[in-house]
Amino acid sequence: MWWHHVCGAFVFLTVSLISFTPPCDGGNILVFPVDGSHWINTKILLEELHARGHNLTVIRASTSWYIPEKSPLYTSITIQMEVNITKITLTCFSIHNFLSLIDKVHSFWCKVLGQMFDDDKMIKMLVDAKYDLVLTDPAIAPGVILAKYLKLPLVLNVRWITSGEGHFVLAPSPLSYIPVPGSGLTDKMNFLQRVKNMLFYSIVLFQQKFVVEPRYQAVCDTYIESGCDVVSLLQEADIWLFRSDYVFEFPRPTMPNVVYIGGFQCKPASPLPPELEDFVQSAGEHGVIVMTLGTLVNILPTDVADEIASVFAKLPQKVIWRHIGGRPTTLGNNTLLVDWMPQKDLLGHIQTKVFVTHGGTNGVQEAIYYGVPVLGIPLFFDQYDNLLRLQERGAGKIIQLHNLNVSSFEQGLNEVLYQDSYRQNMQRLSRLHRDQPMAPMDQAIFWVEYVIRHRGAPHLRTEAYKMPWYSYYSLDVLLVLLTAVTVIFITIGTIFRFLCCRGKKYIKVKKQ
Amino acid sequence: MWWHHVCGAFVFLTVSLISFTPPCDGGNILVFPVDGSHWINTKILLEELHARGHNLTVIRASTSWYIPEKSPLYTSITIQMEVNITKITLTCFSIHNFLSLIDKVHSFWCKVLGQMFDDDKMIKMLVDAKYDLVLTDPAIAPGVILAKYLKLPLVLNVRWITSGEGHFVLAPSPLSYIPVPGSGLTDKMNFLQRVKNMLFYSIVLFQQKFVVEPRYQAVCDTYIESGCDVVSLLQEADIWLFRSDYVFEFPRPTMPNVVYIGGFQCKPASPLPPELEDFVQSAGEHGVIVMTLGTLVNILPTDVADEIASVFAKLPQKVIWRHIGGRPTTLGNNTLLVDWMPQKDLLGHIQTKVFVTHGGTNGVQEAIYYGVPVLGIPLFFDQYDNLLRLQERGAGKIIQLHNLNVSSFEQGLNEVLYQDSYRQNMQRLSRLHRDQPMAPMDQAIFWVEYVIRHRGAPHLRTEAYKMPWYSYYSLDVLLVLLTAVTVIFITIGTIFRFLCCRGKKYIKVKKQ
Repeated sequence: MWWHHVCGAFVFLTVSLISFTPPCDGGNILVFPVDGSHWINTKILLEELHARGHNLTVIRASTSWYIPEKSPLYTSITIQMEVNITKITLTCFSIHNFLSLIDKVHSFWCKVLGQMFDDDKMIKMLVDAKYDLVLTDPAIAPGVILAKYLKLPLVLNVRWITSGEGHFVLAPSPLSYIPVPGSGLTDKMNFLQRVKNMLFYSIVLFQQKFVVEPRYQAVCDTYIESGCDVVSLLQEADIWLFRSDYVFEFPRPTMPNVVYIGGFQCKPASPLPPELEDFVQSAGEHGVIVMTLGTLVNILPTDVADEIASVFAKLPQKVIWRHIGGRPTTLGNNTLLVDWMPQKDLLGHIQTKVFVTHGGTNGVQEAIYYGVPVLGIPLFFDQYDNLLRLQERGAGKIIQLHNLNVSSFEQGLNEVLYQDSYRQNMQRLSRLHRDQPMAPMDQAIFWVEYVIRHRGAPHLRTEAYKMPWYSYYSLDVLLVLLTAVTVIFITIGTIFRFLCCRGKKYIKVKKQ
Repeated sequence: MWWHHVCGAFVFLTVSLISFTPPCDGGNILVFPVDGSHWINTKILLEELHARGHNLTVIRASTSWYIPEKSPLYTSITIQMEVNITKITLTCFSIHNFLSLIDKVHSFWCKVLGQMFDDDKMIKMLVDAKYDLVLTDPAIAPGVILAKYLKLPLVLNVRWITSGEGHFVLAPSPLSYIPVPGSGLTDKMNFLQRVKNMLFYSIVLFQQKFVVEPRYQAVCDTYIESGCDVVSLLQEADIWLFRSDYVFEFPRPTMPNVVYIGGFQCKPASPLPPELEDFVQSAGEHGVIVMTLGTLVNILPTDVADEIASVFAKLPQKVIWRHIGGRPTTLGNNTLLVDWMPQKDLLGHIQTKVFVTHGGTNGVQEAIYYGVPVLGIPLFFDQYDNLLRLQERGAGKIIQLHNLNVSSFEQGLNEVLYQDSYRQNMQRLSRLHRDQPMAPMDQAIFWVEYVIRHRGAPHLRTEAYKMPWYSYYSLDVLLVLLTAVTVIFITIGTIFRFLCCRGKKYIKVKKQ
């Protein structure tokens, strides 16, 4: 088992790059990113911060999957590891080992974090660097705890927190119309769906209380002076840069320190490389279909890939398919297999008619930005939920993996290709998404710099998080008021009865 | 009684200006403003909308207090009335007749509205004008109901709704840390304060359910096809432009269609008129105190005015006092009485050291914008609450009217003048307030135009408002789940007992 190997291994920490650039005119930002697809858009944010003169330090694993050690954007602090936990998690993931994997990932990071805190040299360097803030993706908690340890303002670049959807720990989230991620529900639920939502929320709470929090609690108790827990630390964050918006997400209560930056990575498409442009143009009036199932496409069984290829082969459109597995036997001449493609530039090309995607957040946001309707084949994680939001708006169609065959794929593809409502709805979403007072990237940069300028943003945090749950829900107040009302009624009743009795006695006495 | 006169009067409606300008390149906006101080900043918003090429039509009373019939900004529709209800309400207001006044104001407007709807000529003109949206201040509800009647998108320019604070009908508002206006509480409450807050909320609910809503219900039932109620109409609004922000207001949950435009009326100060500038400069290093108690200053008793003047007379500062009543006998040479002053330009003047104010929203927002610490003498309405928010941040001090005398005023004034923390705190608030991604006025204009571009913003409204309260709070779901759990436990218990009994019988039989 890979896991025993990792947990048994001695996680050795060294600082490989100590040449620390002195603070420049911009801010001095410590970044604790998440590896894998999360890094893709964190990097875009870092490029912008770097361009605006901020000094960036990125903490990365020596075994990093996506995060390079050397970059013109940042100075890196490399933590020596023997495996890459993110890569292993994602590639070993299945629905059956979900909780166990979650447990192991967080245990791993707790171990890493503990050793970071024990490394005096590392800590001295981090303290001496006098960072202005910590920027982290709270899908794992080390960055959040590190910010607390270093007593630094905290900005979250967030799609998910350690236990699901961040809003659930941040803002009031009535389960009657806010679907729990993974439930496959929308904001319009009938009674049974609301029961299902409640049950899903119980699972999330269980995961949070019994799987995630206990893992980090030991680190918090040992290394954070005043004690803390992960949920409180998240609630203490100065700014939440949420990688979504209300064109994509169902509307819900939010908080003053939440900034929606969904699609911040998008910008007008650049021209395609000449060969790709020729291929795209060769499609003529029929246009092009772009397909990718993300970086973990090898999960798609060969027979399914063959079926997909056979459907493509029948179409008059040209197809560009990011495919890493073996060449499907049924591949048509109209289909170009690539192992990488300029996805955003392709989606932004006027010839692109449909985007066939697994429904990762980045891809879905890009499809919205460029207004390309989606045929979605969700694999795992948030992908079904992402695609559901498009399907609900009539801008996409989902085919579940277990229903995927020649017939369903062909039917779905033709529907999205030729039923004009899909394109119209997606273009409406695109218009709404692009119509913002300020570009999402500029918002993100503004709020990072805001936190630097004002050394945090505590005035945007509510008092809600400081009170016990029964006070928060006013249960103590209601109990006292109800008791008071009851006592008053009983007293009045007693007095009334007493007076009645006296009256009766008086009448009796009088009669006698 | 003025009221009987008004209610008995025949409210005669005519359209005095029918020369309707055809739609221009900008939008075509129907404005239903609130008279009095609310008009002051609505007008500033209209100036900006007009400057951007929008065509504005303002509905006003023939007896209007502040809203002129002829204006280069807008075409007006004048409703003939015999009194000005807003002026009478404000000038007759006292805490003792609050509910009765509220009742009468809304009854009055319902009558006006009913007659508007009965006026076929008026309605035809409003329909034919093909407005893009209704912009209204929901302190009274006619604009909101009119938007529903005309089936137009609705943008609210809001400080208060018909029954208090708009957030309470819009977003989750836990009473444990969200003070009800009028309660004089902050977001940090002890147990007894939370009890008080709950009781105040009961009053607000009572006012809403039994005073305001029933007044408008008859109009809604008679004239709105599908029926409606005021609270639902408010919840259906496309955009809420809230005249506050989280530098001023305590942070709380909000909604995606809420835009905070607090201080949108502020801009860098213009030079003062020469004589005023000379007076201000003559104060030298001591600086200037600016005082105004709003338009209803005649509420201030003469002896109190004398006491205030006598305190001013002792100071080395110069004082500019907007005072409409009689000249105080104790007035010093350093005090300039004016019946109007360029308040914003004075507050923005570097010489201004303290702002003595009643705490109206406009004045408080301007004090924040220009960073001038405040000595507040709240008179009524939201003024104490407004000032409390400054006092909580150490940027102002409140003297209640019943505590106002020479000694308390002198002590308070000296404290705000010479304790540097007041100025520092106010300047910090000013820095925070001014540090926004986009100027509040630009935000307001953006969202008005957004609603015009997209014919509303329904995608920003939650599903919350469509469900009954027990579903919203998931009480039905909880009841079913608890019942299910109870049934399961009882069944298991029964089976267990049955098995035990059988076991005992079996043992007994065996023993025999």
